[in-house]
Amino acid sequence: MNEEHKGSRRSGGPRKAQEIFDATLDLLADKGYEGLTIEGVAQRSGVNKTTIYRWWPSKGALLGAALIGARQLELTPPDTGTLAGDLEALLGTIATLLTVRPASDIAVSVLGAATHNPELAAHVKDFFADRIAREQSVFDRAVARGEITADTDAMLLVDLLAGAAWVRAVLRQLPLEKDFVARTVNIVLNGARAAG
Amino acid sequence: MNEEHKGSRRSGGPRKAQEIFDATLDLLADKGYEGLTIEGVAQRSGVNKTTIYRWWPSKGALLGAALIGARQLELTPPDTGTLAGDLEALLGTIATLLTVRPASDIAVSVLGAATHNPELAAHVKDFFADRIAREQSVFDRAVARGEITADTDAMLLVDLLAGAAWVRAVLRQLPLEKDFVARTVNIVLNGARAAG
Repeated sequence: MNEEHKGSRRSGGPRKAQEIFDATLDLLADKGYEGLTIEGVAQRSGVNKTTIYRWWPSKGALLGAALIGARQLELTPPDTGTLAGDLEALLGTIATLLTVRPASDIAVSVLGAATHNPELAAHVKDFFADRIAREQSVFDRAVARGEITADTDAMLLVDLLAGAAWVRAVLRQLPLEKDFVARTVNIVLNGARAAG
Repeated sequence: MNEEHKGSRRSGGPRKAQEIFDATLDLLADKGYEGLTIEGVAQRSGVNKTTIYRWWPSKGALLGAALIGARQLELTPPDTGTLAGDLEALLGTIATLLTVRPASDIAVSVLGAATHNPELAAHVKDFFADRIAREQSVFDRAVARGEITADTDAMLLVDLLAGAAWVRAVLRQLPLEKDFVARTVNIVLNGARAAG
């Protein structure tokens, strides 16, 4: 029993947390939020159902932990040496998450289902708060290099980039052209400098 | 019978099309996509169920027509005399659609449900294609006034604006601050000019 508490992640969790998170997101990608069950996660991860329930009392709680903890949605803040390079890397990752399966099935399912599921919406909110906190380092370094002023609204720049990808790929259902990332970053970065 | 074909809209429809569209979107706002039924629309609009079915054989088809034809989602392209003014009016309308009920219930429900419903997704795609076609006049006038160059990517500018509002209000579930519209338009417009 004690063994399950070893090697736990930030917020605690059983020993096989990564396998449970991966199974959760895989199942979500296959079956959608409605088809996601703790039973199904137990079966796919090979972890006992009662162990999963002990840590996460509902599928909403489990999915919330999986969103933040899972390898499949890993987003290490880039550090390319320039803000333009960092933002291109960031938007490139977001574009891939929204358009390349199976990550896109997960991301689009979760964000879509959150619009009519308050518990899931709370976890999506936490997920975005976690991400913007990690992305802040990109902007701190750009300020230190003198690329932008200290009062630049980092969240607005990220929302412009991520939002353009979401509208184009998910709502308009149009392909993201080869130069989408470079052109979008160029507009946002020039706009931020002119506004700063 | 013939009477129903009088006064039809662009794409054809029964005489009480607006009442049917309004009832469709009201019901969607109240019950979500799962709770939307043609029976319910008939009851709420006072139009016979068979009349509705004659024009729209499924709730997906009906919702698609309602999205494009309904007064509640009306979006007349602004004409304020400047591109900045027009884009602020456009983003102001989008921000209201995403945050003020009941419009926000409709917009967020439809766009969320479309992520896991291919028929609805096709109608959302048509809705966005219809909107960008109407918004084009804003950019044509700005080019004529010399505010932007003719090769400006109008869709990218609209996607940046609408996307930032979507990410902030729907995914992050944070309020759109009082100066959100002005600041967002300022960045996008300065960026477009610098890139052009």
